[in-house]
Amino acid sequence: MRFLHSMIRVRELDAAIAFFCDGLGLREVRRYDNDAGRFTLVFLETGAEGDTAQLELTHNWDQTEPYDGGRNFGHLAFEVDDIYALCERLEARGVTILRPPRDGRMAFVRSPDQISVELLQRGAALPAKEPWQSRPSQGTW
Amino acid sequence: MRFLHSMIRVRELDAAIAFFCDGLGLREVRRYDNDAGRFTLVFLETGAEGDTAQLELTHNWDQTEPYDGGRNFGHLAFEVDDIYALCERLEARGVTILRPPRDGRMAFVRSPDQISVELLQRGAALPAKEPWQSRPSQGTW
Repeated sequence: MRFLHSMIRVRELDAAIAFFCDGLGLREVRRYDNDAGRFTLVFLETGAEGDTAQLELTHNWDQTEPYDGGRNFGHLAFEVDDIYALCERLEARGVTILRPPRDGRMAFVRSPDQISVELLQRGAALPAKEPWQSRPSQGTW
Repeated sequence: MRFLHSMIRVRELDAAIAFFCDGLGLREVRRYDNDAGRFTLVFLETGAEGDTAQLELTHNWDQTEPYDGGRNFGHLAFEVDDIYALCERLEARGVTILRPPRDGRMAFVRSPDQISVELLQRGAALPAKEPWQSRPSQGTW
């Protein structure tokens, strides 16, 4: 058996793509529009060699209300090359860094649909660095 | 960057392991008990070559209420070698096949914590076959 993907529902496809692709750095590899069912599926990958698990975005065209969240699902986790650079890029795009990488190792953000995303520094933690070192956490993740 | 894992919270660790390992066929590859924080993390993999994405189970020891679910998270999807054999094994273990593999291709079940799990037949769909072909769907997934 093989782990194919985790699927999340997104109310605004453009906002989700902006967060996961332009922000986090995932790549769109496949898109499927179903006119009869009025939904679009978009499959994203990291693009790293051998990293085949995908994130599937389901966009129901007629969804107007925000999707609610629950506690049984926790988060998606990605290993990243430079957690500071990524948090800076996300913040510049308007993403709140809920759990800043004070330890040079771990951060949490949320997608536009409130899916919690864990970012983990590849290899050893980076040296502690401002402004992150003294940045307080906010919200929940 | 690399897709590390999807994390879900599980109220009863034994029940979750029974579902994901004994039922679905994932393998436990790492376990971390934190006595101070009173939680256990268990990491599961498919074991397929090159399939590095993991499922992380978080078990908070003092959680007594069921975890609620939400609509922003959709499902976890696994490609399987024989969707009929797997559905038979799951059903024999008391798992309800919510969306039976009538088409020899796709099924949906839910974990004990109501995480929706999609099963997709590897390669071409299997020939339609009873009892699955005429088995109605039930519930939501």
